Amino acid sequence: MAKKASSSSPRKAEPPPAGADAKPFVWRRKDLLGLDELSAEEIVHILDTAESFKEVSTRSIKKVPALRGKVVALMFFEDSTRTRMSFELAASRLSADTILFTAKGSSVAKGETTLDTVRNIEAMGVDIFVVRHGQSGSPHMLARQVRASIVNAGDGQHEHPTQALLDIFTIRQKLSRVAGLKVAIVGDIAHSRVARSNILGLRKLGAEVVVVGPPTLVPSAITAMGCSVSHSLDDVLAEVDVVNMLRIQFERFSSSLFPSVREYHNLYGLTAARLARAKKDLLVMHPGPINRGVELTSEVADGPNSCILQQVTNGLAVRMAVLYLVSQGSE
Amino acid sequence: MAKKASSSSPRKAEPPPAGADAKPFVWRRKDLLGLDELSAEEIVHILDTAESFKEVSTRSIKKVPALRGKVVALMFFEDSTRTRMSFELAASRLSADTILFTAKGSSVAKGETTLDTVRNIEAMGVDIFVVRHGQSGSPHMLARQVRASIVNAGDGQHEHPTQALLDIFTIRQKLSRVAGLKVAIVGDIAHSRVARSNILGLRKLGAEVVVVGPPTLVPSAITAMGCSVSHSLDDVLAEVDVVNMLRIQFERFSSSLFPSVREYHNLYGLTAARLARAKKDLLVMHPGPINRGVELTSEVADGPNSCILQQVTNGLAVRMAVLYLVSQGSE
Amino acid sequence: MAKKASSSSPRKAEPPPAGADAKPFVWRRKDLLGLDELSAEEIVHILDTAESFKEVSTRSIKKVPALRGKVVALMFFEDSTRTRMSFELAASRLSADTILFTAKGSSVAKGETTLDTVRNIEAMGVDIFVVRHGQSGSPHMLARQVRASIVNAGDGQHEHPTQALLDIFTIRQKLSRVAGLKVAIVGDIAHSRVARSNILGLRKLGAEVVVVGPPTLVPSAITAMGCSVSHSLDDVLAEVDVVNMLRIQFERFSSSLFPSVREYHNLYGLTAARLARAKKDLLVMHPGPINRGVELTSEVADGPNSCILQQVTNGLAVRMAVLYLVSQGSE
Repeated sequence: MAKKASSSSPRKAEPPPAGADAKPFVWRRKDLLGLDELSAEEIVHILDTAESFKEVSTRSIKKVPALRGKVVALMFFEDSTRTRMSFELAASRLSADTILFTAKGSSVAKGETTLDTVRNIEAMGVDIFVVRHGQSGSPHMLARQVRASIVNAGDGQHEHPTQALLDIFTIRQKLSRVAGLKVAIVGDIAHSRVARSNILGLRKLGAEVVVVGPPTLVPSAITAMGCSVSHSLDDVLAEVDVVNMLRIQFERFSSSLFPSVREYHNLYGLTAARLARAKKDLLVMHPGPINRGVELTSEVADGPNSCILQQVTNGLAVRMAVLYLVSQGSE
Repeated sequence: MAKKASSSSPRKAEPPPAGADAKPFVWRRKDLLGLDELSAEEIVHILDTAESFKEVSTRSIKKVPALRGKVVALMFFEDSTRTRMSFELAASRLSADTILFTAKGSSVAKGETTLDTVRNIEAMGVDIFVVRHGQSGSPHMLARQVRASIVNAGDGQHEHPTQALLDIFTIRQKLSRVAGLKVAIVGDIAHSRVARSNILGLRKLGAEVVVVGPPTLVPSAITAMGCSVSHSLDDVLAEVDVVNMLRIQFERFSSSLFPSVREYHNLYGLTAARLARAKKDLLVMHPGPINRGVELTSEVADGPNSCILQQVTNGLAVRMAVLYLVSQGSE
Repeated sequence: MAKKASSSSPRKAEPPPAGADAKPFVWRRKDLLGLDELSAEEIVHILDTAESFKEVSTRSIKKVPALRGKVVALMFFEDSTRTRMSFELAASRLSADTILFTAKGSSVAKGETTLDTVRNIEAMGVDIFVVRHGQSGSPHMLARQVRASIVNAGDGQHEHPTQALLDIFTIRQKLSRVAGLKVAIVGDIAHSRVARSNILGLRKLGAEVVVVGPPTLVPSAITAMGCSVSHSLDDVLAEVDVVNMLRIQFERFSSSLFPSVREYHNLYGLTAARLARAKKDLLVMHPGPINRGVELTSEVADGPNSCILQQVTNGLAVRMAVLYLVSQGSE
């Protein structure tokens, strides 16, 4: 695992890329719910498939017909402009039709259950549902109840698998491997589905993970996931290969969780001074949107160690791969 | 009329299905405004055309080029996620481009008249307007004033023709006929455009209709439409072939119209106990979204007599047929 | 300049129209930011290109493949249903994929900068950004910072170049020239990006411009742009070839700027009585949405001198031309 991506990625528009190389791995899942249930082999297969789709985005005509005539419904029970746009573009790059559902002003407001909403829209001929939902586990419930494919685009404080997959894809791309690396995830670990999915995926691919943040945001029970805990960024920075700086979601916080933004930045913000004490080729990641001057300074965010925009670009390829694979897996 | 659908529905993508069989019926309307102005023959022609489009939705590539290069504008002066999605998918299944207009944050807020809004958007090259509007009769006004086709997607408390067409399509599909059947429509008849359009269509195709509900929601003047009135579901349930359980729109009601949700359910809710006293193959319909435990229990909604999800699926085919026919009719 | 459009506009779908005729003008800009930086020759080139795209909208299949596989992101930091729809239809008529971003409920609310938002979405593979923004100059800032093309769809009180281009296109179409004409722009000149862009473009093409309105809305400093000022519509009406009646944006005004709507209409509203004292073929324009009975009466708005709806239709062709040219210019 964590091998370099196959260099034989297909260059032609048809047939759609198989993403596989030597061993004839066959993807069999109709859904992508989380990294928890995936094997290392399955994760690598998604990354390899994404590798072959990455090339499509560099073409003058950024389209392949892989999902032509299929319908992808973007079900955003929770708002997320960025994730919605990434999935929407991924689907249309595969030539699928997309349709958007947002909770606002919809039948949700009329008291309909999530399952009834999804079943109704499925009855309109939808093939894949991309689901963002505030309730942990709702994509899993839906996957058991509907025939269509379910892709989890973030469920409560549980998982955000495509974010973790694009993070790991980016690590593999920039550092040529995952196994044996040491990755720090910094910030609000307690409430972060991004952290959870990253820990799960990185551990499965053989990386070491240390989660870093104030004690109010980093519960010690998290070590049960196979990672270590630190409350000092300065303690761990010199020894890690990657830092993933989670967004501080002020809008979700009560002030009781940490003293002030300034203090958070002083203790956990990535600055040029801190970067000088890290490994020279430390990879700086952030799931976005960034708070400049909080999780990291502009100098770091826009500097040579940052791969924040490449993460976004890779997100397209990873989501194309996921949509393509679950479509294959549902047949 | 109410004959079984032609089995010679076209299987090829081109030319688009004519929907007709023996007699060479030619559709001549540029608009679909309501069932009030349609003849029985026209209604049957829409159902037959829908029959031939139904097959498209079962294909792996759910597309026909019938409306390629045409523009369908979805004009939702009133919110309706479900109807909007159904029309949007129907249009894209016909390869039309779609564009969405919602009243919120738009020129409506700036004091523009409905006619000016529609005329302006028509000037952008729109071929078909799908109009949902709070004011009864506004699609009719628009149809007289613009060259583009107007499809009524619900106007005030007046008509919702495509909902009634998909209901009647589903009845014909499940019971093989419409003429001679006895259909109960249960709920808030007074304020329901779904009820009005259903009564009009069912009567034209030769079905008997009884409307059922509390006296505050079922005006006796409704008998002028050719239906009978009952205030007791238990009285009529044994003798009907179809029950169409209208949604109770709590959000629109003052409490003066009926005592309580519990009492409504006790008197007019469809339960397993009531179903046991009905005909064995009673068809249970609901325009959605359902209030589980109010209009019907979950046991009934998900049981073998329910065709609620098939209604939704058929809605796609019916709306494809309507968009296709008005496009033909405007030439 | 202001010559009649080439009659040799290409009629075939491929290759995309070059828009040029005798002299081989080559468009080299990746962005369209305002009329301020364009030469007369560049403006005429856009109009000529629009001329050749106008024909596409009259076809049965209103599509050319010019931007197939390209992605156009509609970035509406400020709401504008009408402009958004026009650009969206223009893009899809060129076969581009479109994606919509609105400020509401997005990462803007999460404190992200405009530049970070656009850079992130660019990283998803967007080729052209159509930007409507409340802050003057923000499209210019973005154009310097991103590789993708930026099209200004209205920035603060600064410019709205495609509106002015479609206005000038319509003048040229209806009156066969621009140079030597006298154009009155009536209304709130002080706060109007439409007025600014029109003055710039009309002056460059050799038209005379007089701006008309109450002293509170027409600053005398505007004469620095090369136009004259009048505070009486009656004084100028007899001698102008075109009146462009700007929308009074009540929603933006404090009452201190003018006494009342009725008084505004009495002094500056275009009525049949006033029209009778104007040149017989006076061209009456309005950028919409119109306030009937304020800027003009219904009789005038719907009368033979009005070309308000043709402006909207021409807007499509002009926006197709702009999207096509900036795409060429970025290569």
